Amino acid sequence: MGAISLARKLELVDELWSPRIVANLNDYHVKIAKVRGEFVVHSHEETDELFLVLRGELTLRLPTGDVLLREGELFVVPKGIAHQPVAAEEAHLLMIEPAGTLNTGDAGGPLTSPATPI
Amino acid sequence: MGAISLARKLELVDELWSPRIVANLNDYHVKIAKVRGEFVVHSHEETDELFLVLRGELTLRLPTGDVLLREGELFVVPKGIAHQPVAAEEAHLLMIEPAGTLNTGDAGGPLTSPATPI
Repeated sequence: MGAISLARKLELVDELWSPRIVANLNDYHVKIAKVRGEFVVHSHEETDELFLVLRGELTLRLPTGDVLLREGELFVVPKGIAHQPVAAEEAHLLMIEPAGTLNTGDAGGPLTSPATPI
Repeated sequence: MGAISLARKLELVDELWSPRIVANLNDYHVKIAKVRGEFVVHSHEETDELFLVLRGELTLRLPTGDVLLREGELFVVPKGIAHQPVAAEEAHLLMIEPAGTLNTGDAGGPLTSPATPI
């Protein structure tokens, strides 16, 4: 039981768009991911989803317009709102949401990746 | 509805040990705080508590020993576990816990500061 270094955990992540669990917070998972390119448009009907950019930049394409997140910036996508995460260059993310929330939400498809601990 | 810059929000915080809410995540609050010195030993009987150090260093004194958190490191204090946050120099924190969780938990006292939005 010790400090969890997000940078050191991220060094262990190879695959893109593959969230890995770094901590539990009650029934929530704290996850990290490396991303690059365009993810699938999806929504989570049951939960909000927190994105915090640890490195690089992430654009969240929302029905109301794009939200650009730079390093040290966060955004909570409200439940039920369609969003498409996009990153021109590799970006590193922290995400928090209830355990069991799938990365592709209602969209499913080949990018679906059940989060596992790291 | 846009990106939330943690650094810019922290510029607006004057008081130490006074958590401010920067976002809601379902029924959780995402909070920031500036801290320096020794906080009161306390526990939260109903919830885990996430600490992420954004700047500086934070020591969490736990019954099992100290956990030192440097910038970019996080720790989740399990519910019911006594902890004392300590920072020799000013440190900037991100904290996540259910709405209504008081900073002093079961200890109460003069440092109790209900979190308000910023």
